[in-house]
Amino acid sequence: MVFGNMGPTSGTGVAFTRNPATGENVLYGEYLMNAQGEDVVAGIRTPEPIVHLKDELPEIYAEFRRAAELLEEHYRELQDIEFTVQEGKLYILQTRSGKRTAAAAVKVAVDLVREGKISKEEALLRVDPGQLVQLMHRRIDPDAEIEVLATGLPASPGAATGKVVFTADEAEMRGNNGEAVILVRTETTPDDIHGLIPARGVLTSRGGMTSHAAVVARGMGKPAVCGCETIKIDAEKELFIVDGKTVRKDDLITIDGATGHVIMGAAPMIEPELTGDFETILSWADEVRTLGVRANADYPRDAIQARQFGAAGIGLCRTEHMFMEPLRLPIVQEMILADTPEGRRESLARLLPIQEEDFYGVLKAMAGYPVTIRLLDPPLHEFLPKAEELLVEITELRVTQKDPARLEELQDLLRKVRSLTEFNPMLGHRGCRLGVSFPDVYEMQARAIFAAVSRLVKEGVEVYPEIMIPLVGIPAELEMMRALVVGVAEEIMQRDGIKFDYKVGTMIELPRACLVADRIAEQADFFSFGTNDLTQTTFGFSRDDAESKFLPVYLEKKVLQENPFAVLDEEGMGQLITTAVEKGRSVNLQLHIGICGEHGGDPESIDFCHRAGFDYVSCSSFRVPIARLAAARAELLHRK
Amino acid sequence: MVFGNMGPTSGTGVAFTRNPATGENVLYGEYLMNAQGEDVVAGIRTPEPIVHLKDELPEIYAEFRRAAELLEEHYRELQDIEFTVQEGKLYILQTRSGKRTAAAAVKVAVDLVREGKISKEEALLRVDPGQLVQLMHRRIDPDAEIEVLATGLPASPGAATGKVVFTADEAEMRGNNGEAVILVRTETTPDDIHGLIPARGVLTSRGGMTSHAAVVARGMGKPAVCGCETIKIDAEKELFIVDGKTVRKDDLITIDGATGHVIMGAAPMIEPELTGDFETILSWADEVRTLGVRANADYPRDAIQARQFGAAGIGLCRTEHMFMEPLRLPIVQEMILADTPEGRRESLARLLPIQEEDFYGVLKAMAGYPVTIRLLDPPLHEFLPKAEELLVEITELRVTQKDPARLEELQDLLRKVRSLTEFNPMLGHRGCRLGVSFPDVYEMQARAIFAAVSRLVKEGVEVYPEIMIPLVGIPAELEMMRALVVGVAEEIMQRDGIKFDYKVGTMIELPRACLVADRIAEQADFFSFGTNDLTQTTFGFSRDDAESKFLPVYLEKKVLQENPFAVLDEEGMGQLITTAVEKGRSVNLQLHIGICGEHGGDPESIDFCHRAGFDYVSCSSFRVPIARLAAARAELLHRK
Repeated sequence: MVFGNMGPTSGTGVAFTRNPATGENVLYGEYLMNAQGEDVVAGIRTPEPIVHLKDELPEIYAEFRRAAELLEEHYRELQDIEFTVQEGKLYILQTRSGKRTAAAAVKVAVDLVREGKISKEEALLRVDPGQLVQLMHRRIDPDAEIEVLATGLPASPGAATGKVVFTADEAEMRGNNGEAVILVRTETTPDDIHGLIPARGVLTSRGGMTSHAAVVARGMGKPAVCGCETIKIDAEKELFIVDGKTVRKDDLITIDGATGHVIMGAAPMIEPELTGDFETILSWADEVRTLGVRANADYPRDAIQARQFGAAGIGLCRTEHMFMEPLRLPIVQEMILADTPEGRRESLARLLPIQEEDFYGVLKAMAGYPVTIRLLDPPLHEFLPKAEELLVEITELRVTQKDPARLEELQDLLRKVRSLTEFNPMLGHRGCRLGVSFPDVYEMQARAIFAAVSRLVKEGVEVYPEIMIPLVGIPAELEMMRALVVGVAEEIMQRDGIKFDYKVGTMIELPRACLVADRIAEQADFFSFGTNDLTQTTFGFSRDDAESKFLPVYLEKKVLQENPFAVLDEEGMGQLITTAVEKGRSVNLQLHIGICGEHGGDPESIDFCHRAGFDYVSCSSFRVPIARLAAARAELLHRK
Repeated sequence: MVFGNMGPTSGTGVAFTRNPATGENVLYGEYLMNAQGEDVVAGIRTPEPIVHLKDELPEIYAEFRRAAELLEEHYRELQDIEFTVQEGKLYILQTRSGKRTAAAAVKVAVDLVREGKISKEEALLRVDPGQLVQLMHRRIDPDAEIEVLATGLPASPGAATGKVVFTADEAEMRGNNGEAVILVRTETTPDDIHGLIPARGVLTSRGGMTSHAAVVARGMGKPAVCGCETIKIDAEKELFIVDGKTVRKDDLITIDGATGHVIMGAAPMIEPELTGDFETILSWADEVRTLGVRANADYPRDAIQARQFGAAGIGLCRTEHMFMEPLRLPIVQEMILADTPEGRRESLARLLPIQEEDFYGVLKAMAGYPVTIRLLDPPLHEFLPKAEELLVEITELRVTQKDPARLEELQDLLRKVRSLTEFNPMLGHRGCRLGVSFPDVYEMQARAIFAAVSRLVKEGVEVYPEIMIPLVGIPAELEMMRALVVGVAEEIMQRDGIKFDYKVGTMIELPRACLVADRIAEQADFFSFGTNDLTQTTFGFSRDDAESKFLPVYLEKKVLQENPFAVLDEEGMGQLITTAVEKGRSVNLQLHIGICGEHGGDPESIDFCHRAGFDYVSCSSFRVPIARLAAARAELLHRK
């Protein structure tokens, strides 16, 4: 605000044409009567709400209303207006489009369309999809009475409540026992990772938006408030002091990573949902966009949620989470540890009906829409106990000589675990490499999928299964795995005297897959870009290591402008993707192309996918609305 | 041999125009007098050396000599001739170019040039560079009397002598204590890796050229004889039986991975060297080739060896091995574990003079030629004790409660080790990422290099230092590291009142580096392709894990035709390299381009490097002669 040397005024202030917090269509702002410019700037006097002007200077208020309407009419957007009144005359000092919350942006855009001031297309361009992230996280009920203890940087969105703990070790122990804890540290380092994982959220008193805690929390999708310098942590005494108040270990606090607020106690939360105006704008987005939007979902409940948010199918259904569930894990371990092919087959036979139920549920929940099921991807050692844990138990038993039988058993297990352990599991024996080495595992999964499909078809449910082979880099890998899947499908069709459609395709997540995409496309009905792994291999970054170790330094020193795991690296990796799309379509015009990496929910990356000629993006359920809007904007921005 | 129904013969046999083992220019072969065709085929009678024919049928012998000369004259290559003598008449049944040893191939080619039968260029094309590998490994003295116990597959070239051990654990323990052991197993699995590393060689009774042992041994450059089915191993009793003989644990044997021989006792060895004919053919290669050949060498002694084999410079001098040496490792560990920047700088100051001596030695040994020094590349945790080892000691101390002080100390160390441990070290905090995070480490190295350069220049020694920044994938990384190196160079020049030339360049070993090579080239005087890491990231293969786990399966099932770590993957990775060369030269015409990955010593890969327009290849010293020949052949084959 530049008030300059205007002398005494009878009134001066700032007002929005609509409420920038809610989008409500009422004048919103404040003013000072008889103020010097300096008073306003110095903040000595408390200004009054703009509605009071109606009583004090009714004519001026009416004139300002008309001016505000006129300005909004002209700029066709919510205006943020500075004004002054001198000697009974209203002066408009400045006007500009007003900053507003995501909710307000949506409401204003929809209202402006209803008022005939802008078109639907303009409305879509007025709402920043990135800002909508605010609406898609659990947040604190805005109507709740809360006590804000302090405000730090809104480092990773979402709100979380938990008991305060001051060490990563304690966060790990109690978090893994199911307790809700918030880890409070001056700052975090890679030493704290084990405590960050099970904590509900993290609060630091030092560090910025690219500090270790901030980057790691965003990577984990976990709420974080960072650099909250007003809290003074005394880790020895296990407490922090803020504004004279003392918060001790085990006290309950709530942090809001969207606002940076730290709140005493458990604040009431609101789960994200689509409001009426949000629904409206998304329906307009759906009319415009050419890019499909699917969700990544592993369970029937996720599939139902995804449908509610408007996902037209599942782009990635991971099967490894199903393997990890408590009742199944022992069978999976048996399968891995089996000494003979027969032993392995026996365990697989026990997994088959369980997997069939999994797929039955997901396919049914997504009836009428495609479901892309990825066959087992992670290395087998992920399902076994960790060598370090075994080693501790073995050493104890060895030293105490308590239980020689158990010792021998554990030593055997350790040997097996060691034989499966890898130096770089990310680049190891996983994905279709497992399928090539142990075809019976993939065969069981294919059998479970097609048995479920067969049942659903008989029940009259419309299903579109797509079997996805992970980590293909060599055409022969896909050729071999496709033959295996097709063989099982034909067997089930014959067994059940039935016909069903299905697709077989592949993740494109290795540089080499992009480079030989033409030869791979000969075997594929679809490509789905796994941009997480493709980022890892293109950059040579292990995400787990990079985000906790050097990426914060890279962002701080501006070696990189963005975290490439959040925003797709168009300059580098984009070239590989474009090559793959061109090569793939050059031999297979029908090739369906999508993305199932995390970038599928990032607006900038979606814009790239649109330009690269993708058919769809797939992202986590909560990102589906964002993706729908981003896809529409991409279409509008690049329409020729 | 097709002898058909020719009736009785007065003589029949096979002869080479020259000795196929040594290349000596004398008729070499054998015949049977008065033989039926069947006798020859059945092998009932022992044939006689061809020279005896001179006495028995002098005219026939003379005629055969003339025929042999004529045939060789015509085909201009050593001939392998089948003949028969019937009713006093010589019949030549068949002739073809003869298979011969590497040594013979070299001698024959050189002799044929001397005899005016072929040109030097033809001679170069007659010798298969791949075959020369035989000559460049330590081998058993051919004049020695040896007792061949058994013959298996020549799975990985080179010869080794050691005591027989039957378990990987024993091989590890004794091998690490400096004992020479040969690991003898029915077959190896990933469980045995820890024993393969310190063993001198490996002998298996089962498995082919792509078995686990064979692939791993070739990867490690370690002699291996595989699938030696005549030895019967009894691991329980710690012995193997072959031909009725018993070989027990601790007995000394020698294996020859070039011939597949297993020999009792220590066979006398010959170190590889360049013979006169070999030297001759290489000098012709040098006249023809356009591709430079350098060696990878880390120490002065390696540099001297490399010069003897004809390397015109060092393409890769790794500095991490220098850090690993026993006397230095404690200082390096101190540096890593330092709690403060001052502590780190203090340790670095102690390393500085040591590193300066390292570089002084290498640069002096390569006087007159370029030396490419790569700054520190591996992740820091490689220099610390392993977490697992610490954990065992900690658990022991905890259970026994013997030494609480030591326990606490180790727990502290473990915390630090854990904080540096990575999920995928290959893709972690290493290469220039260390330089960006801890600039003082790279600064120390640059200072050590330029201090050595300065001394050498003053001593009148001609030096061409090239500082290489590893693992660049982002132009800003190189920009930052180049500025650091240039800053130190200028400081030293000013300090010592001297001028010297140097280059700053980068490894190209990440897909992204290839994709943005134009922007990287703006900061680089040279590119050196690190094709080991580039293969790892392009395929998404961790070499350590792939070669011990799924690559053998891939080769066996023909998913891949070749191990991409041995032969450069032209179809996939080749595209990235070509892109990088084109993009790099598009902005920097002077850009010097080489390769320092293992592929730099593989003839097929060298052919690719030639076609891709490289300036030089760099490989291990023993591969330098092979590379010189392969480079000449590439030039001849693709000359326009």
